[in-house]
Amino acid sequence: MKLRDLGESGLIRRIRDRFKDAPVTLGIGDDAAILDIPPGHSVVYCSDLVAENTHFIRGLHPADSVGYKAVAVNVSDVGAMGGIPMHFLISLAAPGDLDVEWIDGFLNGVERACRQFGVSLVGGDSSSAEIIFVDVSMVGRVRQGGAMLRSGARPGDAIYVTGNLGSSALGLERLKAGDMKHPAVSRHLYPEPRHHAGYAVADRAHAAIDISDGLSTDLNHIVEESKVSARIYRNLLPAAPDAADWQVLHGGEEYELLIVARELPAVVEGVPITRIGEILESSANHQVFLVDGSGESVLRPRGWQHFSNSGQS
Amino acid sequence: MKLRDLGESGLIRRIRDRFKDAPVTLGIGDDAAILDIPPGHSVVYCSDLVAENTHFIRGLHPADSVGYKAVAVNVSDVGAMGGIPMHFLISLAAPGDLDVEWIDGFLNGVERACRQFGVSLVGGDSSSAEIIFVDVSMVGRVRQGGAMLRSGARPGDAIYVTGNLGSSALGLERLKAGDMKHPAVSRHLYPEPRHHAGYAVADRAHAAIDISDGLSTDLNHIVEESKVSARIYRNLLPAAPDAADWQVLHGGEEYELLIVARELPAVVEGVPITRIGEILESSANHQVFLVDGSGESVLRPRGWQHFSNSGQS
Repeated sequence: MKLRDLGESGLIRRIRDRFKDAPVTLGIGDDAAILDIPPGHSVVYCSDLVAENTHFIRGLHPADSVGYKAVAVNVSDVGAMGGIPMHFLISLAAPGDLDVEWIDGFLNGVERACRQFGVSLVGGDSSSAEIIFVDVSMVGRVRQGGAMLRSGARPGDAIYVTGNLGSSALGLERLKAGDMKHPAVSRHLYPEPRHHAGYAVADRAHAAIDISDGLSTDLNHIVEESKVSARIYRNLLPAAPDAADWQVLHGGEEYELLIVARELPAVVEGVPITRIGEILESSANHQVFLVDGSGESVLRPRGWQHFSNSGQS
Repeated sequence: MKLRDLGESGLIRRIRDRFKDAPVTLGIGDDAAILDIPPGHSVVYCSDLVAENTHFIRGLHPADSVGYKAVAVNVSDVGAMGGIPMHFLISLAAPGDLDVEWIDGFLNGVERACRQFGVSLVGGDSSSAEIIFVDVSMVGRVRQGGAMLRSGARPGDAIYVTGNLGSSALGLERLKAGDMKHPAVSRHLYPEPRHHAGYAVADRAHAAIDISDGLSTDLNHIVEESKVSARIYRNLLPAAPDAADWQVLHGGEEYELLIVARELPAVVEGVPITRIGEILESSANHQVFLVDGSGESVLRPRGWQHFSNSGQS
């Protein structure tokens, strides 16, 4: 069956039937959802879009990965603020000749993410379009005044990263090569956001960001927003098995957290935390320095940049 | 200049420079925005997407209308719940060869909407894609327990509509014909959501919806959700000047409010309110009846349906 046979009202009914038990005042089916934030908390609010042929290839990426990942990346953003993810909306555009099977697979992935992260779908929008386009926006909560910003890093702080680096870019490479059994492939298709770790360290961290555009790009965001510089050490970087150098330094879609703090334990919420460098004072040029062996060079942002057709080399 | 010359970081800088003064705890530039909802209020949360060639045609619809409307339709949704719109995110996908002039026009429209509705842009996402996609999600507030739902209509209630009907569909027709001076064209390009009226009647209304898919479709949503039927009168419908019958009954993108209440005044917040019919008891089939002259017929939803290629006749 094609999406055009199901029609918009059929699609909405299908989604509503699956996600009707959201723990909110009012979920799917009205002009808007109504939800409540516990007293003493602020709203954490973000969105992340997924466009066909840019973020995924139909026929290469399974539909359930597209659904899962669209939710997971927002969970990661909320976690990077030290927040707890709660509810989300999906805006979905797709061609009328899309197989309903794809939609069902997509919804399977969304459902998996809901169970795994304790979040709920409370509404959204749908439309026809020439290609598939998914935008998820998410609302979470954070203790008032307790959010981890990009701008709080101070000279003398240590720089930490959760998990390991390079597996998502490696996974995409292995996926394209048809090597589905490589463990990095599932890290690329079903990333595990580190929101539990983020929440756990929020009161001790000075700054944080999730690594969605690559370590080089995202650490540069921290130094720019905090008006500092940073030094990291190649031999301290927790590289994923088989990951190439550029994948470790510049690979995007990692969804590990980069956390700046005085000191963090080696494991938080079951996730290994590795110290990779330190924050330095800087006056004019806020830069990241990479120490590799006996040499030191400036690490420029070389992660993913949309529109420019440059990006990952 | 093309979008690919500006690059993603250039685009984000351009947006951030324009919208940096949002009255929130944390606006554009981090992994998520942080905002606060006044005590005693719930969060109203919705999204609405705009796809090129589905919702607008580049070269026909001005870029600033696309930006303005993407925000306005969400303001309308919040207003249909009786809420006050506050903050929004924009997820924007566009081709690298798009003129930056289009982006600037789009942002002009967003800025106009911010000023007009007292809302603020606090973040979002951007990506390359083969065609333009815009998804806006919005957060507003409503007094706890005070939202107008689709499901509250009761037999004996009266049905009201704000403003007039048919002007958006008529405006699109005139726009396609190149008749830019027809007043309905600006109603199509720059709709005026009725959120002030919605907020003002929220404590007296039993149900409400905004007319985004056409009167026939949206009134059918009310009767289905409320498990009632409805009767409306052709001669009571406030038709826009020059609007054809199908435009009045089925034309979408009106962004007028359909409000069900015991009684409403003739003018609310400067907006005329017209009584067009009444809610009836029904047991099994929840239907809308249209009285036209001496005849009465069932008014089926014939407004816009995505995917199906049917929709407005």
